[in-house]
Amino acid sequence: SFSRGMQTVTLIPGDGIGPEISTAVMKIFEAANAPISWEERNVTAIKGPGGKWMIPPDAKDSMDKSKIGLKGPLKTPIAAGHPSMNLLLRKTFDLYANVRPCVSIEGYKTPYTDVDLVTIRENTEGEYSGIEHVIVDGVVQSIKLITENASRRIAEYAFEYARNNQRNSVVAVHKANIMRMSDGLFLRKCREVAENFKDIKFTEMYLDTVCLNMVQDPTQFDVLVMPNLYGDILSDLCAGLIGGLGVTPSGNIGANGVAIFESVHGTAPDIAGLDMANPTALLLSAVMMLRHMGLHSHGNKIQVACFDTIRDKKVLTKDLGGNSKCSEFTAEICRRIQDMD
Amino acid sequence: SFSRGMQTVTLIPGDGIGPEISTAVMKIFEAANAPISWEERNVTAIKGPGGKWMIPPDAKDSMDKSKIGLKGPLKTPIAAGHPSMNLLLRKTFDLYANVRPCVSIEGYKTPYTDVDLVTIRENTEGEYSGIEHVIVDGVVQSIKLITENASRRIAEYAFEYARNNQRNSVVAVHKANIMRMSDGLFLRKCREVAENFKDIKFTEMYLDTVCLNMVQDPTQFDVLVMPNLYGDILSDLCAGLIGGLGVTPSGNIGANGVAIFESVHGTAPDIAGLDMANPTALLLSAVMMLRHMGLHSHGNKIQVACFDTIRDKKVLTKDLGGNSKCSEFTAEICRRIQDMD
Ligand SMILES: CC(C)[C@H](C(=O)O)[C@@H](O)C(=O)O
Ligand SMILES: CC(C)[C@H](C(=O)O)[C@@H](O)C(=O)O
Repeated sequence: SFSRGMQTVTLIPGDGIGPEISTAVMKIFEAANAPISWEERNVTAIKGPGGKWMIPPDAKDSMDKSKIGLKGPLKTPIAAGHPSMNLLLRKTFDLYANVRPCVSIEGYKTPYTDVDLVTIRENTEGEYSGIEHVIVDGVVQSIKLITENASRRIAEYAFEYARNNQRNSVVAVHKANIMRMSDGLFLRKCREVAENFKDIKFTEMYLDTVCLNMVQDPTQFDVLVMPNLYGDILSDLCAGLIGGLGVTPSGNIGANGVAIFESVHGTAPDIAGLDMANPTALLLSAVMMLRHMGLHSHGNKIQVACFDTIRDKKVLTKDLGGNSKCSEFTAEICRRIQDMD
Repeated sequence: SFSRGMQTVTLIPGDGIGPEISTAVMKIFEAANAPISWEERNVTAIKGPGGKWMIPPDAKDSMDKSKIGLKGPLKTPIAAGHPSMNLLLRKTFDLYANVRPCVSIEGYKTPYTDVDLVTIRENTEGEYSGIEHVIVDGVVQSIKLITENASRRIAEYAFEYARNNQRNSVVAVHKANIMRMSDGLFLRKCREVAENFKDIKFTEMYLDTVCLNMVQDPTQFDVLVMPNLYGDILSDLCAGLIGGLGVTPSGNIGANGVAIFESVHGTAPDIAGLDMANPTALLLSAVMMLRHMGLHSHGNKIQVACFDTIRDKKVLTKDLGGNSKCSEFTAEICRRIQDMD
């Protein structure tokens, strides 16, 4: 990897256990000599001039400069009337692709082994348009919006991801038998893009069929691409297959290198501040981030140390089946990294 | 059970393996002395006077009189431009509740044991409204329609089902954090109905969370009720947990006792006519039908014989892991029924 000095990352520690697991990640990055300098920011929405919710300017500025964020869990909504912070962040930085690699973790037992797939979710439109109306009393409509541009963009992202990550197949997940026009448009764009990626196998599958096949044999899947809501569902389902949100990393990718990596679990207020939290999801998200930044060897080192620690089963947080503290789990990962040198 | 003479059921054998598995069910019903007389009908849509697709009059008349249908798989669409027969049937007879009990089958190994839940899907509206528009070139909208009446009706069905089937809890599955108005309305109706069923525990969960928890531990669920698309997804996911569509029964329930029970697997054209099909899903759907008709003892007898045959592992069709023919599997179930008397 290139030596190009320190790169700045905007750190959004978040709420509840957020600060603890962020500290854990920073310690591990230090042990790995990752050339990252952190710029910590609070993103809690404020009301802008026109009364619209917005990210505070200093957080927005930091992200605009660094382009890269690492984010812990945020409690949503902060209070009644507040927007979902996750949605606001995706919108503010046009983070159009949500990427979730789901890979079985050796030593962490679930009903499945050898899961190794990636869900790629369109992150900006679809059922998340926010457009809803009362037609007459007792009759409500919600609008699902699918555009050619967003569909092409996410399809291109998925195929490029497959190619760049040595993956062989992309499945487009849809319900175009029911939503013929909207999912039909999404599917057409996937087909068109597939034409330019003859090295990647392309298939189309109904969402219901994918869910059924997924729980029967997830090893048949590789890269899956889909509209917003389907991605919300499938990415959580797949996280469940490998052990849940506590061990699943996630990245939200925008144009021109902009990206926010995040753990998608909750803020766990019941254990906040008790040094009991599991930093794995945030750490693996930070590993995705390092790779996104071209820092592969640092990313690999940290990932190996994390997985070795879990496989070894000696120092694990409670949710992973052990009785170690967050700080002990963190120290064990650091120790393994230092042993590698 | 009452002795009230023969009751007529409209039999829609369907396509592909449909006729074989229908024959299997009829043989088993005969062995069990089930007081059913079959009226066989073809439901393939025809174009009515106004150019609208409709169920052929003799099939419609039969259902209108018998009120009860048993249906094998239909190939959909028959040809380009044809409507989905499943959707047309649901619409024609206003079958507003899709009910799928998912129960682990002893002897048929899957990654899960002790699954015992029921998905109850609103079957008439939501994302299946069929209303879609091109707004401008490259921008399409699909409309999800949620009404107070359909939401209340399905919620009432779910709670009554729970009470009548000795089940303790109902979970309403939604994304009201995103579709605040439409899923919000659905949820409000569930809450209102829950007030009248204080004996049943009521909870609300996000669809993504349900999917994640479902694959981690399905035994935590009992009755789940949800809008149309979510039900399409979750019912297939849950079928996967217990072994797939080949062993999962399904019922579509309307008002005033009208109902169509069906196997939801495909027509399997590759093995059609080869005496290799597995009639279990249609048979278990027929058992649901018997219970719906008040014929519990016949239903129980057939179910026990079917499950005993599977548990015993001696006479199984290929998809169940054996090498027996459909007719042999059927004969084995008949033999066990006759042995019970
Ligand atoms: C918190 C919520 C708005 C969000 C979503 O529905 O997208 C969450 O489930 C996710 O997947 O990030
Ligand atoms: C065949 C299709 C229209 C149908 C649906 O989407 O409802 C099927 O998946 C089902 O669940 O019955």
